[in-house]
Amino acid sequence: MSIVPASHHDLLDARVATLATVGADGWPQLSEIWFLAEGETIRISLNTSRQKTKNLVRNPVCTLFILDVANTFRYLELRCDALIASDEDYHFADQVGAKYGSDLRQHDSPGVSRVMVTLQVRKANAVNMGGG
Amino acid sequence: MSIVPASHHDLLDARVATLATVGADGWPQLSEIWFLAEGETIRISLNTSRQKTKNLVRNPVCTLFILDVANTFRYLELRCDALIASDEDYHFADQVGAKYGSDLRQHDSPGVSRVMVTLQVRKANAVNMGGG
Repeated sequence: MSIVPASHHDLLDARVATLATVGADGWPQLSEIWFLAEGETIRISLNTSRQKTKNLVRNPVCTLFILDVANTFRYLELRCDALIASDEDYHFADQVGAKYGSDLRQHDSPGVSRVMVTLQVRKANAVNMGGG
Repeated sequence: MSIVPASHHDLLDARVATLATVGADGWPQLSEIWFLAEGETIRISLNTSRQKTKNLVRNPVCTLFILDVANTFRYLELRCDALIASDEDYHFADQVGAKYGSDLRQHDSPGVSRVMVTLQVRKANAVNMGGG
């Protein structure tokens, strides 16, 4: 069943999105991320040293926000559960790298690993304040 | 004292920003907002019927995320405390309306009021993943 309305389905093809996790201090942590979407299944590759990864391990609730950068009245807010799986061999990271033309190993210090985070969308808010 | 680095000060002049609050269910709530910045004091006008207003009354922690829409590698993340003040006479709402060429009363149903929310920046994360 589709959760994302047809009016905003194109935003799943956006280059970047904003991921919000919740820190141990209670503050939302927001950062810009790359992602892969297959239908409404969204996956991201995270370096295990990053604060957002630690936040999701501690508290797997998160929200993905995809802004139409050409029309900032229009956006998609996805409330998600995060499922974290090891990606030590960079199998998934290489799929993300292929989309973005980047080798994700170059972002990682020695001793750092990768995880694949699957965002299971529980609720979508599709907004268009500009009408149309 | 300046919290926002000079490299990202221009983003305080952006048209829109993403505000993240935390809902009673623990999920971050993100939405696109208008704002006024005077130096590093950021103020927003919220309708009292909105979920983000209720979230801030319950839990005044929030994060403001300002993306450079022309270069999505570059953004400013501001961890803030929200101070909420009544704006029943639309004094502040009219200042916001003047910036954006809009009468904020037109967004409000009968019986709804306005508050002015001052975001006190505690910490700034200035990011430029594209270098330069």
